[in-house]
Parts: sequence; structure tokens; C-alpha cells
Amino acid sequence: MLNCAVLGATGYTGAELTKLLLAHPHVRVTLLTTRQEKPIALREVLPSVAKDMTLEITPYSFDQVKKKADVVFLCLPHTEAMTAAEQLLGAGKVVIDLSADFRLRDKKIYEKWYGVNHVAPQYLSKAVYGLCEVNKEKIKKADLIANPGCYPTGPSLALIPLLKKKLIDPRSIIINAASGVSGAGKKLVTATHFCEAAENYSAYKVNKHQHIPEIEQTLSEAAGKPVKITFVPHLLPVNRGILATIYVEATGKATVPIPINRSKAEIGVVPVNHLGNKVKTGTESLIRKTLETAYAKAPFVRIKPAGQYPCLKDVQHTNFCDVGVSVNEETGRVVIITAIDNLVKGAAGQAVQNMNLRFGFPEEAGLL
Amino acid sequence: MLNCAVLGATGYTGAELTKLLLAHPHVRVTLLTTRQEKPIALREVLPSVAKDMTLEITPYSFDQVKKKADVVFLCLPHTEAMTAAEQLLGAGKVVIDLSADFRLRDKKIYEKWYGVNHVAPQYLSKAVYGLCEVNKEKIKKADLIANPGCYPTGPSLALIPLLKKKLIDPRSIIINAASGVSGAGKKLVTATHFCEAAENYSAYKVNKHQHIPEIEQTLSEAAGKPVKITFVPHLLPVNRGILATIYVEATGKATVPIPINRSKAEIGVVPVNHLGNKVKTGTESLIRKTLETAYAKAPFVRIKPAGQYPCLKDVQHTNFCDVGVSVNEETGRVVIITAIDNLVKGAAGQAVQNMNLRFGFPEEAGLL
Amino acid sequence: MLNCAVLGATGYTGAELTKLLLAHPHVRVTLLTTRQEKPIALREVLPSVAKDMTLEITPYSFDQVKKKADVVFLCLPHTEAMTAAEQLLGAGKVVIDLSADFRLRDKKIYEKWYGVNHVAPQYLSKAVYGLCEVNKEKIKKADLIANPGCYPTGPSLALIPLLKKKLIDPRSIIINAASGVSGAGKKLVTATHFCEAAENYSAYKVNKHQHIPEIEQTLSEAAGKPVKITFVPHLLPVNRGILATIYVEATGKATVPIPINRSKAEIGVVPVNHLGNKVKTGTESLIRKTLETAYAKAPFVRIKPAGQYPCLKDVQHTNFCDVGVSVNEETGRVVIITAIDNLVKGAAGQAVQNMNLRFGFPEEAGLL
Amino acid sequence: MLNCAVLGATGYTGAELTKLLLAHPHVRVTLLTTRQEKPIALREVLPSVAKDMTLEITPYSFDQVKKKADVVFLCLPHTEAMTAAEQLLGAGKVVIDLSADFRLRDKKIYEKWYGVNHVAPQYLSKAVYGLCEVNKEKIKKADLIANPGCYPTGPSLALIPLLKKKLIDPRSIIINAASGVSGAGKKLVTATHFCEAAENYSAYKVNKHQHIPEIEQTLSEAAGKPVKITFVPHLLPVNRGILATIYVEATGKATVPIPINRSKAEIGVVPVNHLGNKVKTGTESLIRKTLETAYAKAPFVRIKPAGQYPCLKDVQHTNFCDVGVSVNEETGRVVIITAIDNLVKGAAGQAVQNMNLRFGFPEEAGLL
Repeated sequence: MLNCAVLGATGYTGAELTKLLLAHPHVRVTLLTTRQEKPIALREVLPSVAKDMTLEITPYSFDQVKKKADVVFLCLPHTEAMTAAEQLLGAGKVVIDLSADFRLRDKKIYEKWYGVNHVAPQYLSKAVYGLCEVNKEKIKKADLIANPGCYPTGPSLALIPLLKKKLIDPRSIIINAASGVSGAGKKLVTATHFCEAAENYSAYKVNKHQHIPEIEQTLSEAAGKPVKITFVPHLLPVNRGILATIYVEATGKATVPIPINRSKAEIGVVPVNHLGNKVKTGTESLIRKTLETAYAKAPFVRIKPAGQYPCLKDVQHTNFCDVGVSVNEETGRVVIITAIDNLVKGAAGQAVQNMNLRFGFPEEAGLL
Repeated sequence: MLNCAVLGATGYTGAELTKLLLAHPHVRVTLLTTRQEKPIALREVLPSVAKDMTLEITPYSFDQVKKKADVVFLCLPHTEAMTAAEQLLGAGKVVIDLSADFRLRDKKIYEKWYGVNHVAPQYLSKAVYGLCEVNKEKIKKADLIANPGCYPTGPSLALIPLLKKKLIDPRSIIINAASGVSGAGKKLVTATHFCEAAENYSAYKVNKHQHIPEIEQTLSEAAGKPVKITFVPHLLPVNRGILATIYVEATGKATVPIPINRSKAEIGVVPVNHLGNKVKTGTESLIRKTLETAYAKAPFVRIKPAGQYPCLKDVQHTNFCDVGVSVNEETGRVVIITAIDNLVKGAAGQAVQNMNLRFGFPEEAGLL
Repeated sequence: MLNCAVLGATGYTGAELTKLLLAHPHVRVTLLTTRQEKPIALREVLPSVAKDMTLEITPYSFDQVKKKADVVFLCLPHTEAMTAAEQLLGAGKVVIDLSADFRLRDKKIYEKWYGVNHVAPQYLSKAVYGLCEVNKEKIKKADLIANPGCYPTGPSLALIPLLKKKLIDPRSIIINAASGVSGAGKKLVTATHFCEAAENYSAYKVNKHQHIPEIEQTLSEAAGKPVKITFVPHLLPVNRGILATIYVEATGKATVPIPINRSKAEIGVVPVNHLGNKVKTGTESLIRKTLETAYAKAPFVRIKPAGQYPCLKDVQHTNFCDVGVSVNEETGRVVIITAIDNLVKGAAGQAVQNMNLRFGFPEEAGLL
Repeated sequence: MLNCAVLGATGYTGAELTKLLLAHPHVRVTLLTTRQEKPIALREVLPSVAKDMTLEITPYSFDQVKKKADVVFLCLPHTEAMTAAEQLLGAGKVVIDLSADFRLRDKKIYEKWYGVNHVAPQYLSKAVYGLCEVNKEKIKKADLIANPGCYPTGPSLALIPLLKKKLIDPRSIIINAASGVSGAGKKLVTATHFCEAAENYSAYKVNKHQHIPEIEQTLSEAAGKPVKITFVPHLLPVNRGILATIYVEATGKATVPIPINRSKAEIGVVPVNHLGNKVKTGTESLIRKTLETAYAKAPFVRIKPAGQYPCLKDVQHTNFCDVGVSVNEETGRVVIITAIDNLVKGAAGQAVQNMNLRFGFPEEAGLL
């Protein structure tokens, strides 16, 4: 049995992770910590635990973690995680960090988007980005795993295989994403007051969300060149789930090239996209097939059949990422829709999946 | 006092319209009808009416409408409205049709998207599309006003001035829209069962929604050439409201053109859009200013200042259309967000606004 | 035109009241104040106002209020209102206080339940409790009107006529109430975080809610003797509305008395209530008729016919109080259900109704 | 491994049950059936199953059930279950019936409340009412287990120990219950349309709900004499969960009796309840302790400490029944609040718990 510690177990992510670990067949939860000063019974933050559950969440103590844990999950706020990680890595622990502190490889980009100095930059290049299905081999050997952000997970999984096969234009990526309120955490702010969020819906941080550089880094690597995206997150009046509706343009590989000097009459009326490519009837099935092949052996990525699209209900409380595809043959534009549970595949579930990969457990252990 | 009849007063739109007309200072509700066989007390469908309200919704009778109404609002299902409209126009009534039957000028396009024959095609060219702020002068003289669809209203208002000024590329239009459940009407279907819709969110009719040709017709007229759009509607777990997040690319007029044979290195890293145009710092304010100017005298279109975006709460139960703008200077892409109440500005409110224009009442009478 | 000031216009109640006053045919909003240090545009808190609305909410200044207002509405927190009221009454203003500060006639009871000293006790006996339908005549002459609390309004309206006619046992009153989240105000607390309130439902302040003494005071007056109630409020995952399900026992006047030494076999099986009274078949209609008669001329109290019950949807955004009645003939118990909008009839709407009564406007002016 | 069949696996209860059985360590799901004519993939109704799940829900065939199942769960509509049960019991199967068909021991009462003839009355006396914590020993030997209704479960668990100890008056029981919409099933009716249910709350079937005789039967048995209750169910705008707020009066055993001819002055002002009993300060803790003792070994019944009350969030997706207690010392009335997940402890979870008891598995197997 692997001994696990969760640092920051009182937040939504920490509690969800604790729940998954308690039900996991191959691990033992040996320590739960909080930044608060007094111990809290686990049942206070996780009411679904057994009646006789005696576990407590105790104030953070490095000595305790050192003594009790083989693997340490950091559910700490961005910028607090890096200090803890440095110390724990020094003590030989495997660290799975659910914060953003080690996701961006470039110190400057991190500091620009998060507005703070990075105090452990020496680990930036050693950290492995824990997008399980994509970085599986590296994760198996990593001592510091940077668990992906909730927004980046779905779109990255959907776009990477298409970028690698050069089926979509890397300049054309638009991600329209909508998240449930738990994504904003437990902190009390006006936007998450029930009377503001319920019966409401709005965009926020338009072109300014801190997950933009994370997605761009991942997609640039897949495309083999710098990728810039347009990303607009929205706040949904639901507890859990992220649905991303992604708009991209198919490249010549997925289309039938036509002469660049096409007649003006054609523009906008025949299925010609911005690149001057005519969309083939088979573009949609080519894209779907590419995704199906890429994730044929991935237990948590499900590609929907033609005419069907993901929805939040299908993925809530699961580690699945569902993906749907539609190609508009009039405009040559590709629509890809992804859905995950932000607290599971977008955080705690993917963290457990990373642990499974790292320690040689079956990938779906504790997750299905 | 103008005598008004509402045909189909039991649905969500009909009830909302009746509510607005009852509070209107210059009209009188003289007839409410239903396709059901028995009369229903108005209070059954509109519980907010006065305690002593005795109005009834009665089975449809052409003679009654002929006798009692100057203006007739059709809140009938698509395809039923055209039959009624033909008869009523023949009897000299002014008809404001809230169905889709007279919105599309091309009979073939109507029949393709709605799957039925059009029985009154002679009125297609006479009908005026009731997008109030845009077609004001024509509406003043129209006897048949085709009230716009709920989804088309916001995006049309936002994009028309930009297309007219050629500030955005007509080939680049992507509309990601999300609607409250009342937009789907009162009919009982699985998707609107509380347990399916609540805590859920999903796309539907991707690239297949019947409002696509309506939006394309409107935007083509503004652009002066055929426009094809990408349109993905989503179902939101709220009662009312539509928020559309629109992605377009700025043209050379709003940007700084750069040579088409720009070096590959630049692509995707400098602020160059698909058209090979470099975005100017001032693009965002140029677009915002264009919209502000276009709607300076429009009482119901409000352009949000920089950094602010519309939300459903701000427009629910009002006839406003709120519009926000953001330009991503990295990608050269323009994000425009519009919000309306689907039952008010997207249906009943705009119908009243059309009546106000047609009969010379103040444009905001009964709406503010 | 009457000049109105709203003190505390930024909260949910203050904004709702401002909205109603702006639409009122006989008044003018001349001053809106806030306890914050900087002025705020009204549109920031009330987005439904006209586009060209220039009204501002300004920091409180006694001199301004003195100069600009005939009637002053206090939407201040409990305990702040009393200080302001004292000053304003001294300046000859009519004060309608939406806080709890002048609702309880007994200084000690106020201090026990609200945990603070009362600084203006000399006004406690002069204040008129603004339950419009019940205290109409006194309200017409009052200079200080204590607008009722949101929870007390519905149950008080339903029970007063029955207590006055001695049809129900004053010892038997149980009020099970459920309120929308806006009742808890704009303050950020854990219970009103979307993720805590949505998809949730729970009781709170069981037997401890500060509206208990207010209801008991009102009902004691109607019963002519001290009344103690059982009151359990619950938090509903909706924005607006209070539904109260009230359980009482019919007295001998509404039932057929049977001998107190009835056989044990009868207990619990024949329709005999705690008082040893056998319920008549006509008890339900007697109670319904009593309520209908009491509110025959009240424009905002609607008694539902047999077999129909109030719901929140019917009263949201209205000043109505709907009341339904059911008598269980097996147990002799009476169920009365009331529904109001907590921000309208439970606060701002009733305040306007009080103003209408006080200044001789039609009772429903600005409210229908 | 025990072979399980679920008849009626497409409804909310059937799908939840299938989910629990698939995760159960000691059973195998060998058959899922539907009344529809064509087979359906399980993933269509239970999207959380593994990606490679090939189970199908097939049209009902008695031969298949006979061949493949040891235990058969009936998730059929009331009145259909009894026919199936008769046949399956004849074939020697253990039947756990989630419908109401075998819950009431009296054929006449069943027929009165459900409005149909009972076709298998010979099994009414043989069926064991599957309230696990209460009927554990009988359940261990039962071949036909009538799984309790969703509303009866919580209140029965809370009241039985108190009635057995004669601490509460059996004539005084009032149950104010509120259920999430899934309790109404998947059928499309107006009341469960999103636009009717969301932002709404109302009572329904006041004094007429078919769970009344079930609760009365259970409580009568505990009280040792006929019990009649007042029961008012409400529809909550949430997916899952039932919270019942129960009002009862403490008897002399829990209180201090005072003379019946007490002075009138005392009535309603001192803590004297209807029975003429003065409430002791220790009544609340006596009641709480009685419940704690009764359920000390029950893994799924949790008694909240003083001042804390159950909420839906704490029990959703679990098999717990949480119970809170408050005694109003002013009125002598006891408030007991219970919360369960209607689909788990109120249906599928309790059915699994019944199976665990019947087949000698640990009581919490597959449920914690």
C-alpha cells in the first residue's frame, strides 16, 4: 500500500481527491493537512465518508509529511505550492502538484501571468506536465508531476492528435469554454454568491485567463511551432463540469486545396475556409477517426459518434473526457466539443491517474 | 387606444406578450386566443395579473379577430402562422408574426430549413424583418412584420454596423450562443425535463439550427455579399436569456495590413490574423466606437465600456440588448458578446417595439 | 409628486424598492444613498434602468435627505436604521423602515433577539406595524411605519382572520417556511456560496430565527392572548420567494366537539384533533371562506380554490400573497400555505403599498 | 458471486441500482431488462460506465430472468411489479421490489390509495418491509422484500425508536417533506419541465400522497396502536434528495407532567405542550440519545450533534440517513429533521442494503 498525503484537503479539489484516494484499492491516506490553525474532522469537509471515519485534517507540518507519506499531493493555492514542492522533493518524495506552479516551463511567462516571482525555477524543466494520455511515458518516471489545469485538459486532449497530424490550422484555434462554479473554488466572492451566479451566465477574463499560456505551451509542442489561441471562459450556473466548444479550420491535409486566386463569387458561399481550402465531405470522419485512433487504448477519453455531442451530465463525478466533432461543410470550419468534470478529470481524478501511472497501478484503479 | 389580439396566448411568448400589452399605456388587449378547445382564464397562464382580471383566452375564431383587433400578434407555431397571416392581411389587419414563417425571403430556403411548403409565398417579399433598430423606417409602413428569432437578434445587432463599415471579415463569423430553457417552449421533451437540463449544459443542433439562414440573410444584406456563418447553440440551465459569444476577424480597415508574404516565423506569434493583417492597438476602441455611434439613439442597445461584458442577469425581464467587445492583440481576433432576454428582446418585447414603431408610439412605450 | 429617498439603495431590497419607485406614477426618486464612501451609478446595482439614467447613489448626508425628501425609506441593516430614523423623524419626515428596528413593541424582546441596545425606544410605541391589509387605518396616519419582515408577512396575513374568529387553536401553530437566497442579503457567507446553496436544501436557525417574536407579537394581538409558535426556516436554491406551510388545529368553532373521555379506540383513527374536537366536513370551506371574506377587498391577497396551492412562480416579481387551504379530516389538522416574493410583498413592494396608504394614493399604484 | 437482474433498468432508479451493483464486490449483473421493444446499450442510460462496457438492456423475457438471475430487483411501475413478482417467486427467485406493490399489508388500503386491484394478495403477508435498520432479522430470511418508498424512509427511521420508547405522542405527527425532481421519475409532465420546476417550490398532493398509508402502517406498528399523520410533500428545484422536517410533541415520559387544570395564564406562555406536559430541559438530549442508541451499530444512520441539522448536500450520492433534533422549550414541540438521497437510501441503495442483509454480505458492501 502506498502512503499518500494531501496538502490542502479542505478545498473542493482536496476533498474530492481525498474521497478518491480513500476508495482506491492500492493506497492508504496517511496524512491530510490544512493551512488553518486547528485540526478539522475530515467529515466536516467530506460528508460522504463512513460514519466511524476518524481521520482528521491537521495543520501542516513538514516533519509529519516526511514521516508519513510516499507521495504528496499539493492542493495548495498557486504560489504556495512551489515552496512546499521544493522542500518535499528535497526529502525524496514524489510530488503531484495540482496548482499551476510547475505547469509552465518558462519562468517569465509564469511570472507574467501569475504576477509573482517563481522561487523554485530549477524544477520547471524537471516537472512533467501530467496530461496522462499524452505524456504517459514521462509521467512513469517523474518525481514532480504538474497536474494540468481544469480548462486546458479537454481542449488539449482533443487538439493534440489533430495538430500532430497537421489536420487543423494552428493559427485558427478558438476555445469557448464554460465552467461550473466549483472551478472558482471555495473563496467567497461576489461572482459566486448564489444570487449572482444562479439564473446567470457570462464571460469573464476574456483573453486574460491564466490558463491561456498553459494551453498555448501544450499546443505549441504538438504543432511543432508557436501557437496562439483565443480563449473565452464563461461561468455556468452548475456545480461541476467544463464544456469547451472549440472552433478550428481544417488544413489542406483534411481538405481539397483549390487555387488561391479563386473567384470572388466563391468566397463565403462554397465550402472554402480561410486558408483557401475546400472542405472534403470526408473531413469530419477523418477527424473523428484520428481522435478514435489516438485514444483507442485510453480508458478515459471517449469520442462520440457522428451527430452526438458531449454534455456535462455524462461526465460529472467521472474521470472521462468526452469529445464530439462536427464539420460545417459550408464554411469549412471544424467544431470540436469536449466535456469533463472540472474536479475529477480536471483536477483530482487526473491526479490519481497520474499516481497510477507513476507507481505502476492499473491506469483506471480507483477511477472506474 | 389601439386594439390588440394575441393568437396563441398560452405559450411562454404569448403570455409574456400579453403581460407587456396589458401594461402598455396606448393599447388595449381585446382578444386572446388558443388552439385548445376550451377557454382558459388568463390568470392560469399569467399569474401576475390583477386579482380581479377577467380576461379569458378563447378558442380561435377569425370573425372575432376581425371584429376586435387592429393589430394581431401571431404567437403560433411555425407553419401555422402563415395560414392565419394570409387571412388576417386579407382582412386589412396589421400582423406582427412572432413565428419564423415570414422571416426568410427565399421560399426555397424556408422550405429546406423548416421542412414544409410555404402556403403564402406572395407575402415573403412584402414582409418587413422586424429588427427594430435596423429596419425602423420600413417597419413604420409595414403591414406584415416578421419579428426576428431569439438567437438572431443579438448577433445581428452587433455585427451589422461592423459589416456595413467593413471592419470585420464576413467569412470569419462564428457565433457560440447559449439559451435559457424557455427558448425551447412549453412542449414536454426529454431535453427540458428538469433532471436532464438542471446541472447540465450541452450543444445541440450543431451547424443545423433553423436560425442559421435567418442570421445569414440579415448579415449578407449588411455585408453586401453572401455570408455563411458557423453557429453552435447550447442549452443553459436557466429560465431566460441568451448570451452569444461571437468571434470574428478584423479587416484591413480596422488593422494595419502587412505584406502577404510575411515570414513564416511571424505566423501565430505576432498579432497577425488570418487575413494577413496586423492588428492595431486601437482596433478594439474603433469597433466599440462604431457600435456606440450606430446605437447612440437606440434606447435598448447598450454598449459596455472596455473590460466589461454582458451577462444574463443584466437583461432578464428587459428589452435591452447589451454588447461587449474585446480584441485579442496576439491573434488579431475580435470577441463580441451580446445578451438579451429571449422572451423579451428576443420575442415579445421586440414585437411591442415593432408595434410602437408601426403605430407611432414612443419606441420605448410599455417597455421601460 | 412625492419626493422619495432610499437610504441603503445598493442592497437587494434597496435596489428592488428603487425600481418600484421609479415606475410609480405619483412619486419622484430624489435621493439614493449608500454607506459606502464613493458614489455609484444606479445602473451598477439596477441594470434594468433606462440607458440614459443618470441617477447616482451617493454617500449618506442628513442634510441632503432633509432637503430632498418627503418620505424616507430605510433599507439599512438592523440597528443602523434606528439612529437614522430618530434623526429623520425629528426633521419631520415620514419614515418607512424596512429593518426590524421598530417592529417589536417591547424593547427587551428586541434586545434579546437582536443582541443590541435599542437607542430610540421612545418610538417603539409610536411606530405602526406596516402589515398593510391588517393595519390600514393606522398606517394612513403613521409617521413611522415598521415594514414587516419577509417571513412574517405571509403567515400573519393567513392566520390573523382565523385567530380573530377563534377558528384555530393559538397553541397549535407550526410554521415551516422556505426562502430563496436573496432573503439572506448580498453579504458573502459560506451558506450563500453557489456551490453550497445550489442543489441543496436545509433548515437553519431552528427555533432561533429573529422573526419568531415578530410573528408572535402579531398573532398574540389577533388572538387576544399570548401566542407561542414553532418556526423552522429553510434555505431554498432559488433567488426569490418564500413559501410557508403552516400547520394548525381547528377549534370547536370549526369542528364538532365530542366528549373528552372518548374511547381509546377513537384516538388517532377518527377525525379527532388534539383538542378532542371532531372535524366537520365543512371545516375546510369555513376556513377558506373566512379568508376570502377577510381579503375580499384586498388587491394583493389571493385565496386559492379548493385543491389548489400557491407556488413561488405565481408570486415572483409581484406584490401578491397567495394562500391555499387543506384540512385533513383524518387528523383534524389544518394546512395553510402562503407564498410571497420576499423582495416585493416581503419587503420593497409592501413598503410602496404602505407609502400608497399613507399618502392617499391608490393602494395598488406602482404595484400592478 | 451472486447473479443479479434488474427489471426496469432504464428509469432513474433502475440506472442508479445498476451503477451500485456494477461496483459491488460480491455480485454480478447478469441481466438488465426494459419494457421497451428494442435493446438499449447500458451506456445510454448510465453514461458513467466504463468505455468498453458492452452490457445491454434487453426486452423483458421471463425465461431469461429464470435462467440468469438469483436475485431480481423490480424497478417497475406500481401495479406492474406485482405480476412479475408472482411469477418470479414461483420460479424460486429472491425478489426485491422497489415498487409499492407489496409494502402495504392491507389489500384494501393498497387498492384505495393506488386505485387498482391487487392481483397477488397472497404475498402481501409474506413480503417483508425492507426498512433495513428496523427489520434486519426478517429481511435475512425473506424471499420477497418490499423496498420502502423514498418519502417514508427518513421519517420512519427517526420516529420508530421514539414511538417504541413512548417519548412522542403518536397523534401529533406532522411531516413536512421536500423532494428533488428525480423522485417524480423520468416521465414528461408539466410539473417537471425545467421552466416550471426551476426557481420554483410548491406543495403537492397535500394530505393525498400515496406514501401516507405506508408511513402510517410503519409507525402504527412501532406505536402499538393506529397512527394517523399529516404529510405534506413539496417539490424542490434540485435533482436529488429528500429533506423531511417533522414536528411532534413529547409525551409525559420525555417531559414533566403538570396538572391538567392548569391556569389559563400558563397556556401558550410556559413550555407546556398540547398534552398538558411541561417540557424538561433535558428533553432534547433524551431524544437525541435515544436515536443514537438505536442506531449505534447502523452504518448508514447518523445523528447530528446539538445545534446541527442535516442538509441534502451531505447525503447526495450516499446511502446515509442523517437526523437532527431540536426541542422548542417554549412550546414543548420537538423538531426532527431527516435527509436522504431519494435514489440511494430512498430506493436503489436501500435495495442493495437489503440484498446484503439477505445474502449475508457485509451490510455496507458496495455502499461505502
